[in-house]
Amino acid sequence: MTPRIAIDAMGGDVGVRVMMAGAALARHRHDRLKFLLVGDEVRIKAALDSHPNLRAASDILHTDEVVTGDDKPSQALRKSKNSSMGLAIQAVKSGDCGAALSSGNTGALMAMSKLALRTMPGIDRPALAALLPTLGSNDLVMLDLGANTECDANNLIQFAIMGAAYARTALGLERPRVALLNIGTEDMKGTDEIRDAAAALRDATELPMDFTGFIEGDKMSRGDIDVLVCDGFSGNIALKTIEGTARFVTDLLRNAFASSVRSKIGFLISRPATELLKHHLDPNNHNGAVFLGLNGVVLKSHGGANEKGVANAVHVAAELVEKDITRQVSEDLARFGGSRAGETRA
Amino acid sequence: MTPRIAIDAMGGDVGVRVMMAGAALARHRHDRLKFLLVGDEVRIKAALDSHPNLRAASDILHTDEVVTGDDKPSQALRKSKNSSMGLAIQAVKSGDCGAALSSGNTGALMAMSKLALRTMPGIDRPALAALLPTLGSNDLVMLDLGANTECDANNLIQFAIMGAAYARTALGLERPRVALLNIGTEDMKGTDEIRDAAAALRDATELPMDFTGFIEGDKMSRGDIDVLVCDGFSGNIALKTIEGTARFVTDLLRNAFASSVRSKIGFLISRPATELLKHHLDPNNHNGAVFLGLNGVVLKSHGGANEKGVANAVHVAAELVEKDITRQVSEDLARFGGSRAGETRA
Repeated sequence: MTPRIAIDAMGGDVGVRVMMAGAALARHRHDRLKFLLVGDEVRIKAALDSHPNLRAASDILHTDEVVTGDDKPSQALRKSKNSSMGLAIQAVKSGDCGAALSSGNTGALMAMSKLALRTMPGIDRPALAALLPTLGSNDLVMLDLGANTECDANNLIQFAIMGAAYARTALGLERPRVALLNIGTEDMKGTDEIRDAAAALRDATELPMDFTGFIEGDKMSRGDIDVLVCDGFSGNIALKTIEGTARFVTDLLRNAFASSVRSKIGFLISRPATELLKHHLDPNNHNGAVFLGLNGVVLKSHGGANEKGVANAVHVAAELVEKDITRQVSEDLARFGGSRAGETRA
Repeated sequence: MTPRIAIDAMGGDVGVRVMMAGAALARHRHDRLKFLLVGDEVRIKAALDSHPNLRAASDILHTDEVVTGDDKPSQALRKSKNSSMGLAIQAVKSGDCGAALSSGNTGALMAMSKLALRTMPGIDRPALAALLPTLGSNDLVMLDLGANTECDANNLIQFAIMGAAYARTALGLERPRVALLNIGTEDMKGTDEIRDAAAALRDATELPMDFTGFIEGDKMSRGDIDVLVCDGFSGNIALKTIEGTARFVTDLLRNAFASSVRSKIGFLISRPATELLKHHLDPNNHNGAVFLGLNGVVLKSHGGANEKGVANAVHVAAELVEKDITRQVSEDLARFGGSRAGETRA
């Protein structure tokens, strides 16, 4: 399927120009990509002047209405029909586009997407997934990152299936290694929900993944696993703790290097090394959180992403559409459900 | 009260020598400190040969029995009467010592302490608290770090009261700023338990603390708060994620510095800066997790702590005994309970 991606041109702190520049950058990489650009036509056209390659591949859908960062999900839902975010999602619902990308209000994007696209058959709740850097050879898929504050065992099992499909698609892995986030690795650790999910996943050898059991928060960046599954509360805590700690350490480092002339000279000499570090930790290199489990692909780009970040999110969207993540998840759910026909589920 | 501290000389990876060296180091700082050293008498005496100052301030209580890292809490409880860990706790129960310190098996230490010392009046469950580094002028008290997988609103309120008392004692703050860990800062965010706890703490102006509301995982190291309250599951995830991410960033940094001759030279020149960073992140500078909420003070030293780490844990123990943390918590509970007499508690 030639991916056509609906872009909410208005959302986020970044504005139209960064969204357009990011899409144009992604278009250079995928020369068959098509776009539907949704938002203020005058501003979109002005931004497209610098990107003729994107203009040639895009249609524009004009609207004045915008979901703001302050809109509560309930308020945003009233903007489903006419806002740039709502119209981008509607384009996925109608089949006109394969995916929608917005850098706007996450809660609003999720509420609108759920209402318009509905969860796919076999999935009780969609989850928010993202890629995180590791010391290993590939990134780590982590989910749920905050869509569901509380989760039961079936939710966690479904997240594992969706996360593994995402890892096969985005990371090109045949059998991703999947683990559940927990406060210890022994079987008895954690909540009933986590233990029940682990028991079911351990038995689910028919799935195209290797379930490796529990993993603790200090081990997840080592590159030992490819998919990390958790409820949205602990996932959000862990993700933000990673961000905060990475910033804390780099701030300490900056202060340390600024503490003496000798350190400053050392810093200047070793600049390429610290640039490499910055590159690894730059969230733009891992931009694009995906709502998995809906009848259609919806991505959230970070509100503060630069054009490289937006391009990465567009790239992830294109991969998910081309490799038909929704079908992959359906097939795995059927495998899992099929082998358990007649069994009582955890 | 002149603090006398019972030290489980046997636990952990570190062995008798490090525990003794750490206690001796702390003794130099607090010259009135007394010790009860529990464990293998021959090995303790051999280690004391290098520390005459500690020998003069210590009694030795001999036992052969040791709780191992592999002992499940249920197995460890059978060693309550005769193990070095059990006897150290018994010395607190009998009033012979003000605090017990062990670097052994955390689960065993907690189970034994709860059974022997019982939770103090007004506290439903004890919590594990520790100090974390921040970019601010003081460390951060964080609890619960894993003692309670699931917590209700009253547990969280009690953790806030205990954490604030700990911050007043260990950090010397009059009115510590207390926040609840959550996945957003708006009132509606999080679980019912967290929202109910926040509502009660917001009203509890009679307590010697400033409740600042919710805080997210990326903001906790900035120095904006002094006490971070959470259930043991998310606390453990956050704590270990901090450890893992700090290690991840420093590993990236090491790889980056080793990547070229130029970087290596820069690294050598700026060595004092990276040493400063290492100092900030060295867990030995924040060693000593405390079980709060028991009738007596019990501390866990990290299994891999060096003598400086053990000395820090002994220092924390001495402060908690001298400033009578248990009485402080009782008084705050009475304040909180008193002002709510007749009210239905959340």
